[in-house]
Amino acid sequence: MVSQDELESIHEASLTVLEEIGLNFLLPEAREMLAKAGADVDPSGSRVRFDRGFIDEMLSTVPSEFTLHARNPAHNVTLGGNRFAICSVASAPNYSDMEFGRRRGDFAGYKDLMRLVQYFNICHLPGGYPVEPVDIPTPMRHIEAGVAAMELTDKVLYAYSLGRDRVLDMLEVTKLARGIDDATLEQETSLWSVINANSPLQYDIPMLWGIIELSSRNQAICITPFTLSGAMAPVTIPGALVQQNAEALAGIAFTQVVRPGAPVIYGGFTSNVDMKSGSPAFGTPEAVQATMISGQLARRYSIPFRASNVNASNAPDAQATYEAQMSIWACMLGHVNLMMHGLGWIEGGLCASFEKFIIDAEMLQMAAELMQPPVINADTLGLDAIREVGPGGHYFAAQQTLARYENAFYDPILSDWRNFETWEEDGAKTATERAHLLYKQILADFKPPALQEERREALHAFMAKRESEGGAPMQ
Amino acid sequence: MVSQDELESIHEASLTVLEEIGLNFLLPEAREMLAKAGADVDPSGSRVRFDRGFIDEMLSTVPSEFTLHARNPAHNVTLGGNRFAICSVASAPNYSDMEFGRRRGDFAGYKDLMRLVQYFNICHLPGGYPVEPVDIPTPMRHIEAGVAAMELTDKVLYAYSLGRDRVLDMLEVTKLARGIDDATLEQETSLWSVINANSPLQYDIPMLWGIIELSSRNQAICITPFTLSGAMAPVTIPGALVQQNAEALAGIAFTQVVRPGAPVIYGGFTSNVDMKSGSPAFGTPEAVQATMISGQLARRYSIPFRASNVNASNAPDAQATYEAQMSIWACMLGHVNLMMHGLGWIEGGLCASFEKFIIDAEMLQMAAELMQPPVINADTLGLDAIREVGPGGHYFAAQQTLARYENAFYDPILSDWRNFETWEEDGAKTATERAHLLYKQILADFKPPALQEERREALHAFMAKRESEGGAPMQ
Repeated sequence: MVSQDELESIHEASLTVLEEIGLNFLLPEAREMLAKAGADVDPSGSRVRFDRGFIDEMLSTVPSEFTLHARNPAHNVTLGGNRFAICSVASAPNYSDMEFGRRRGDFAGYKDLMRLVQYFNICHLPGGYPVEPVDIPTPMRHIEAGVAAMELTDKVLYAYSLGRDRVLDMLEVTKLARGIDDATLEQETSLWSVINANSPLQYDIPMLWGIIELSSRNQAICITPFTLSGAMAPVTIPGALVQQNAEALAGIAFTQVVRPGAPVIYGGFTSNVDMKSGSPAFGTPEAVQATMISGQLARRYSIPFRASNVNASNAPDAQATYEAQMSIWACMLGHVNLMMHGLGWIEGGLCASFEKFIIDAEMLQMAAELMQPPVINADTLGLDAIREVGPGGHYFAAQQTLARYENAFYDPILSDWRNFETWEEDGAKTATERAHLLYKQILADFKPPALQEERREALHAFMAKRESEGGAPMQ
Repeated sequence: MVSQDELESIHEASLTVLEEIGLNFLLPEAREMLAKAGADVDPSGSRVRFDRGFIDEMLSTVPSEFTLHARNPAHNVTLGGNRFAICSVASAPNYSDMEFGRRRGDFAGYKDLMRLVQYFNICHLPGGYPVEPVDIPTPMRHIEAGVAAMELTDKVLYAYSLGRDRVLDMLEVTKLARGIDDATLEQETSLWSVINANSPLQYDIPMLWGIIELSSRNQAICITPFTLSGAMAPVTIPGALVQQNAEALAGIAFTQVVRPGAPVIYGGFTSNVDMKSGSPAFGTPEAVQATMISGQLARRYSIPFRASNVNASNAPDAQATYEAQMSIWACMLGHVNLMMHGLGWIEGGLCASFEKFIIDAEMLQMAAELMQPPVINADTLGLDAIREVGPGGHYFAAQQTLARYENAFYDPILSDWRNFETWEEDGAKTATERAHLLYKQILADFKPPALQEERREALHAFMAKRESEGGAPMQ
């Protein structure tokens, strides 16, 4: 998307921001650690400045690739290089389907969405709560949701960085679900958390505790500035990227201060706002450019790159679909390693849609198929078949066709390729209506993955113990 | 999508097809011309074989770039290089909107769709009849539709190659609409036609007349094999491309036999069928790969490249949208010069949808915006704005924002970025429902472009004359 020189000018400008303006780190313990490591910490406030040498040194220990371990090793996820992993929608306060409409997040919706997370192979891991289960009181919400995730899926677990106690609880849930001790957990990264900068140029206390508790134990951090161009970042995309990059590098540097070599992901979330209303916009041309340039930056630093499958539509309709496609292609062309909100997100993240989850599954399966390089050899070039059929014939009965037809092409789960008359007789259902039926059927047929009985008991015993202690205090 | 070596192996295999198997050219006059030019013509049948030297020689005279002249020079379209021109849907037998449903093509629908062709700048030219006006008897259909196109738009005219007489009539309509003589027409390419191979490996009589009549007058031909992998072409995408390329090169070579230097476009339309039903599929992962490789082939020969914005959905829904997006991205990444069926196509081409026309307009405007390279300079890097706002602030009132906010970002015509509550109060309309209202409004407000009175009279006089002669005979 930009030349090497242009990329360097973004990089250089962000180093100037780090050196000259710096960021606010609101947690005193984090500032202390940064001062000790050699950053320039304002003794009378929260400002921290970073010189170029410091940033270079911190970047030198970041792993270019690492593995997140699931309780089922078949669902381990390696991030970096040419790998492309996909998460479900995360943190939506509402969820919807076209029958019951839009609901406040609850545990029932959370569990149904987790079942879809488990069902689809193209959904490699959940990206947090697909919908916030607000009917579980906050002191126990993280534990109950975490245990339910481990009962409904055997994929990688996620922790919200909403205070130390919650992170420590989730470390415990992870160990119990995997049946491992502290030493193994430290060797096998198994838990991860997204850390958002409070843009512009600020890291808040719970986020910094998340980095300290997780990075120190070699668990994974996904640093993600939320730089909406025109609102929390400059109104130009290059300017927003300068700020994003400064914030990302500061956060990434802090993970390496906490523990050199700690696994960390470079997250890009630069989009723009609608300048008429201030509403955030997603899947825009500007956001595609920003994602592709962010990918160039992450590759420059050899850090696994995260972006998202996002849209601003209020329904799982054509707008949700084209904005999502713009996002998906941006991820492919931006060489993303971790796509967040891959399945189910609508409304700029304010709602998880069941129908959109299915539409996304189809779109992402198509993307995965597309990324398989075509095989060009004497057999696929098909001269024998062309000789066999000759001018004016057809290939339905050609030997090559008979040998290959079963797996020749991508087989869709949602697309309906029947002719109009057949489709009309069958109820003339739109893709969104078919997605509705499909998700209902998947939930009706769902069988949870096996979980060893002693692990389930240990998880429930931990949950009961923490409940008796009152759970985690409000933060 | 494929390496240079892999591309050469496709090219080489297609030359083997041309040399060893050849194609059927069903028109004796075409075979005569080919024989005279040095091709190997079977004296007892319709088969024509082409050796490598012959193909190389014919390719050497193909222009890498040319301009199609419209009656309004502002709407001239240059094809080749880095240029990207977009046509409306063409040749649909039906049309639909969500209110009246699906109708057999008629003149009223044709004219309404032509109004949309004129309205949208992103629709650079019509791609033929957006819908077939079947209520006009065939002897006069091409003339009445052509004259209506010239009254409702001032964009480039199209001719169907459905026999010599029709092509000659359309040459006349073109001259009268532009107010030019034969010599100017020959200097300024103004009319074009798509020539489909009757795959596999056959060119039919009307198509060959189209090439003869148009290429001989320096008008443009878009050679497009219709190679559906598994049906009219091998079940492997590389094999289908070998056949597509052989058919395309044979057709392109024939244009140069007719007139060296005649403008011609390399068309790719390789997709796959659903092997369960035989239905054609569009916007599939395989089709994206095929389009990107076709673009590599066309660039290898320095010939302007045509592909399409296609889908197989029966409604302007999420499926139509994601399949179209796959097609649009394939065109962008395949370096397309001419996108056919850019706006309005659904149902694998069997229907033109008014709502889809609007959805496509939005998607293509976004694509055009995306293809504008970002400007990276001291001003856009925004250090001054970042200094001005600092940590914890916001950019709504920053100087840079105030100076740029009006044109900072792409401004959508269909996307609704309002919050859920506002959107719901306003009727909770999906993108397709909003597209419906938008197209109705555009038609209600439509003002046709100016057409000099003497040209209009000349067109109508010609129409009356041809009507009195009974129009063009059935072919």
